[in-house]
Amino acid sequence: MHVHLRDGKMMDLVTPTVKQGGVSVCYVMPNLVPPITTIEQVIEYKKQLESLSPSTTFLMSFYLSKDLSPELVAQAADKKAITGIKCYPAGVTTNSSAGVDPNDFTPFYPIFEVMQLKGLVLNLHGEKPPSDNDDIHVLNAEIKFLPALIKLHKDFPKLKIILEHCTTKEAIQTIRDINKGKSSSEDITVGATITAHHLWLIIDNWAGNPINFCKPVAKLPQDRSALVEAATSGQPWFFFGSDSAPHPIETKSRHEGCCAGVYTQLHAIAYVAEVFDKHGKLENLKKFVSTNPLAFYQVVDEQIKSKDTVKLVKNVNEIPKVLGNSGEINVVPFKAGQSLNWSVEWN
Amino acid sequence: MHVHLRDGKMMDLVTPTVKQGGVSVCYVMPNLVPPITTIEQVIEYKKQLESLSPSTTFLMSFYLSKDLSPELVAQAADKKAITGIKCYPAGVTTNSSAGVDPNDFTPFYPIFEVMQLKGLVLNLHGEKPPSDNDDIHVLNAEIKFLPALIKLHKDFPKLKIILEHCTTKEAIQTIRDINKGKSSSEDITVGATITAHHLWLIIDNWAGNPINFCKPVAKLPQDRSALVEAATSGQPWFFFGSDSAPHPIETKSRHEGCCAGVYTQLHAIAYVAEVFDKHGKLENLKKFVSTNPLAFYQVVDEQIKSKDTVKLVKNVNEIPKVLGNSGEINVVPFKAGQSLNWSVEWN
Repeated sequence: MHVHLRDGKMMDLVTPTVKQGGVSVCYVMPNLVPPITTIEQVIEYKKQLESLSPSTTFLMSFYLSKDLSPELVAQAADKKAITGIKCYPAGVTTNSSAGVDPNDFTPFYPIFEVMQLKGLVLNLHGEKPPSDNDDIHVLNAEIKFLPALIKLHKDFPKLKIILEHCTTKEAIQTIRDINKGKSSSEDITVGATITAHHLWLIIDNWAGNPINFCKPVAKLPQDRSALVEAATSGQPWFFFGSDSAPHPIETKSRHEGCCAGVYTQLHAIAYVAEVFDKHGKLENLKKFVSTNPLAFYQVVDEQIKSKDTVKLVKNVNEIPKVLGNSGEINVVPFKAGQSLNWSVEWN
Repeated sequence: MHVHLRDGKMMDLVTPTVKQGGVSVCYVMPNLVPPITTIEQVIEYKKQLESLSPSTTFLMSFYLSKDLSPELVAQAADKKAITGIKCYPAGVTTNSSAGVDPNDFTPFYPIFEVMQLKGLVLNLHGEKPPSDNDDIHVLNAEIKFLPALIKLHKDFPKLKIILEHCTTKEAIQTIRDINKGKSSSEDITVGATITAHHLWLIIDNWAGNPINFCKPVAKLPQDRSALVEAATSGQPWFFFGSDSAPHPIETKSRHEGCCAGVYTQLHAIAYVAEVFDKHGKLENLKKFVSTNPLAFYQVVDEQIKSKDTVKLVKNVNEIPKVLGNSGEINVVPFKAGQSLNWSVEWN
């Protein structure tokens, strides 16, 4: 429920890998250049994606910015052009320069009103921008953001909010606190996605290793444990969002600064299954990757383009060293050259 | 008092930059392949370095390993072939695979006895190796090492020990605690070096930026503040050790894992001066880079090959984008392409 499919040749390369990785319904990030902020853009983008992978269901999003108006958002919701709106704090990750100031969301409150009314999802990249003065750095940027999440939920209790790609035990605890005592899925308005790679990585794995570097950065062992515990718990407010974020190999091999993002889509379900298996929790895998997110997003049958089902199969799944198309563009997948014990098979 | 001059073409390139960077006396690290563990090796290596930079004083070191014996160490000390011995925990940094197990130094106690007797310096790379089971990762590896430093000092109160390239406020505090109440320089047996780059960097600066990635990694803003405060304090147990660690640009531009080390030697004093200036502490610069380390190492006049003096000059000091020799080997310096406000001039 959170995938970067890019545009141009990168889009051509990675869009078919959504299905190959075992995913039928995906929620597509809008951080293109320029960001997606009009109904025309979103329709055109979806058309391109569907032509590349006709049986994948693409749920589309707007990029929260001053270019949006409550009227436009209402119109996009009525036309079912979008499922939600992604909010990027300015400057924290790939193509986020058009993002918002997370210290003050009030300029966007009229938009949030409309979103709440129309049932749109607000997807939060939950990090404060780095600041020497405020002692904000990559390790505590998410923790420092959590009060803003709590306030947003308080101000818009019925707005569906997702804390995307959460990485800290503090974030997990905050989501649990917010959902305390909730039983019916209708009561749940705040959820969190967890990526495949954050179930595997800690800081040591990206220190000096650009392929594993992403934002938010993977944190400490205790954080990874909290993420694994949350993901495998089956609790309905935790679900899979791959945040698969491909970059050309060249931009991952730069001594002077490399792009943030881990590409996981081609083996998305297999990476997750391996962790669930290791912790003896395979029985909760379907909840994490399917039941919980479809319920949170209230995806209805007629939205789903293909009723094909996917089966988890135990066999050796070799991850290629590189994924490329005719030498034009090459992406190094997460755990490149390694092998997993699980793969997927479509019926 | 801590510089990596490597061997072969890299040695040819970086050895003359010790003097160019404003440094007359340097202490040379022994982590070549194979590591330096014999008197013949250390004499030959010193000869090579002196031929590359005749007016630089090279203090030499052994690599602590099972290849050393108390007898060999005593002999090397008597011949004044070495000034100290560097201890690398196995597996924590460049060419440290021959290192020791920092959970148990007792196999080396007979060597430490000799070192204490002969006045040799023990240089500690103060990090525990990463361990999932013991919750040791790049952020706390130094903190977890500190009890071993305290124990070593307790067991060998007269052995000169340096905690090299310290990076945490906890390390600074430990050095202060050990030296509490000491006034005479003869009483000081435990010191710590601080690098130029750790006075500048925090975790955000190396996240996704291989040029700034080194071991120990730069930590949080509060740690950097503690390092700056310690370095500029003038306290005799804190002094400069650049840990300048050049790597060819190719090994810093690898998506699948890049080498740890920041090259600073060409502008060593200028980087440090800039920080001291920014904090209004230029008056303590000489203590940090010269008086304190020479006193700790008890360097005597007849050891120093050149009596040339160096002057700090305020002018624009452009750092090249790359330092190379005839295209054979290229090294990207710290803050490449930027400019400093200070440079050095030899008289």
